[in-house]
Amino acid sequence: MSKRTAHSPRTHALSVRDSRFLIVGGASLVGSATAELLLAEGAAEVVILDNFFQGSAEAIKHLTGDARLKTVTADVMRLPQLIAATSGMDGVLHLAALMSLTMDRDPWMGLDVNIRGTQNVIEACCINGVRKLVFPSSNAVYGYGPGVVGDLVETSPFHSTGAPPAAILYGASKIIGEQLCRDAHLKRGLDYVALRYSTIYGERQHYRAANALYIIETHDRVRRGERPRVIGDGSETKHFVHVSDVARANAAAFTANATNVAVNISGPKPVTTLEIVRLVTELSGRDLIPEHVEPDPSKVRLTSGGAWALDHTLAGQTIGWRPQVDMREGIRRLIAWREATGN
Amino acid sequence: MSKRTAHSPRTHALSVRDSRFLIVGGASLVGSATAELLLAEGAAEVVILDNFFQGSAEAIKHLTGDARLKTVTADVMRLPQLIAATSGMDGVLHLAALMSLTMDRDPWMGLDVNIRGTQNVIEACCINGVRKLVFPSSNAVYGYGPGVVGDLVETSPFHSTGAPPAAILYGASKIIGEQLCRDAHLKRGLDYVALRYSTIYGERQHYRAANALYIIETHDRVRRGERPRVIGDGSETKHFVHVSDVARANAAAFTANATNVAVNISGPKPVTTLEIVRLVTELSGRDLIPEHVEPDPSKVRLTSGGAWALDHTLAGQTIGWRPQVDMREGIRRLIAWREATGN
Repeated sequence: MSKRTAHSPRTHALSVRDSRFLIVGGASLVGSATAELLLAEGAAEVVILDNFFQGSAEAIKHLTGDARLKTVTADVMRLPQLIAATSGMDGVLHLAALMSLTMDRDPWMGLDVNIRGTQNVIEACCINGVRKLVFPSSNAVYGYGPGVVGDLVETSPFHSTGAPPAAILYGASKIIGEQLCRDAHLKRGLDYVALRYSTIYGERQHYRAANALYIIETHDRVRRGERPRVIGDGSETKHFVHVSDVARANAAAFTANATNVAVNISGPKPVTTLEIVRLVTELSGRDLIPEHVEPDPSKVRLTSGGAWALDHTLAGQTIGWRPQVDMREGIRRLIAWREATGN
Repeated sequence: MSKRTAHSPRTHALSVRDSRFLIVGGASLVGSATAELLLAEGAAEVVILDNFFQGSAEAIKHLTGDARLKTVTADVMRLPQLIAATSGMDGVLHLAALMSLTMDRDPWMGLDVNIRGTQNVIEACCINGVRKLVFPSSNAVYGYGPGVVGDLVETSPFHSTGAPPAAILYGASKIIGEQLCRDAHLKRGLDYVALRYSTIYGERQHYRAANALYIIETHDRVRRGERPRVIGDGSETKHFVHVSDVARANAAAFTANATNVAVNISGPKPVTTLEIVRLVTELSGRDLIPEHVEPDPSKVRLTSGGAWALDHTLAGQTIGWRPQVDMREGIRRLIAWREATGN
């Protein structure tokens, strides 16, 4: 376990090599990819904590066999379990959260997990002197609806007019999470980096993310030989980021000499939903013409007012990160994983 | 107790006369003024529920003697108490909340009260078929910092860059409260109106509101014969609303045929802090020259980027309300009350 010596200058950097990491809510898309990367980069230990409500053993089974990986069944709503799990940890990545679709079904649990859960994680980190917390935030802190257009930078405000309640609750819960980190930094010296992920996709993709559904539901139809569906004219902007780039961003947030900052994490370029449908169709080796359909009013949709992009320039300056995987390569990998694993 | 008859057209209006009202967190500035108004307008019953953590018996003692007024000691964190208290109620006004100063001291309790407390109130209202909930929101849903300039209308976004954590937590908690109401309206048919109050001042003023402190701390100094203090050049904009206008807005929100809407509630015009200091000094009958001081960095200050105003046009259109008391008259009443009561 790495320790600052008493006479060394204060640094906010935490090297991955030989450090111990806890990934809260880690038995999932981002958690499994990050655990894999941290282990590959020489972490002394990676503990995945999950209550397996959304997470699954399946998501981390490719990591079994590495003696440095441990799993703990625990819940972010139980502070004593988090205090026990953070003991001796150098870095904590707090992924446990409900997104808009689940927030819509159960706002009560969503706010509990996203707000109280984050309070508990921060409290546990402070109690045990964890050197750095990486807090996954979201481009949802800029909101949805007609106000969201153009380049979103870290000072852009939160737009909510015209957005569904669950999307606003989710975005506001992430704004609160960031501020709880900032408050703990200012009052208790906790080092943290908040990463505002755009929509994540990739290997071990699940069905819980409203925007990532565009990719996998399209692939589901196309591989059954059905025509893919485009909502409206397909011009709606989406900005994805591949899960391997997110894992690299998480590691970079630990190793960079950065604290008390929130930065955008997004893929190389935004795409339209029509482009996604065409890419998925082409990379599936199919020749199917998309059909244009009206949105299903019973579903939570996250739409903006026009073309927008999540600008990740600041992440380059602050944690030395930039995305490497473009949409074509990322969708190719996702499809290859689904075909290989029967998902 | 007023009831909709089965054959009447669906209305979202709730007359004050002969109706029963619960004011949650009511033993305070706004609660006492609203209770007084509802009783004057013929309410059958007004129940003030408070845990007396911030509220005080002092704040409602001018109402004792009216048999239609009852008080209940209970806590918004205890759902069964709210279910009991909302039973048989026609209208509920949910005032219990922590503001920025208290949020700064204890974010954990602040988020509990403002979010879980609101969830509990909404749940109790739905369980007992309360006809209308009035949810006090805040101009804090537009945030603070350099982004806040010009006319704030109900579609303006939430700015947080440059604002203190507690102010952002408070604003986000109010955004969440509004959306919890909206979600309950859409899924469970709860009628509600959210009122985004600007800074409230007036008789029975307390020391818990960061902006209202400008008035009463100035008055405290002036009546001791000390020079009043202006932070910086005094050009900072504040937009106050007198408590009697807020009480009228609460009543109007019940009686108007409006639901599922959030509207701004503010005084006739914004003022600068220098104008406030001059008004308080003049109306105190003193001739003291203000001294200009630097802000105290240990205090939570709610500042914006320039001149701004909370536009209350929509409140006129939606609930037929407009403010009546200007700053000169409001400060005159506040000072008269402090002199008469020894506060």
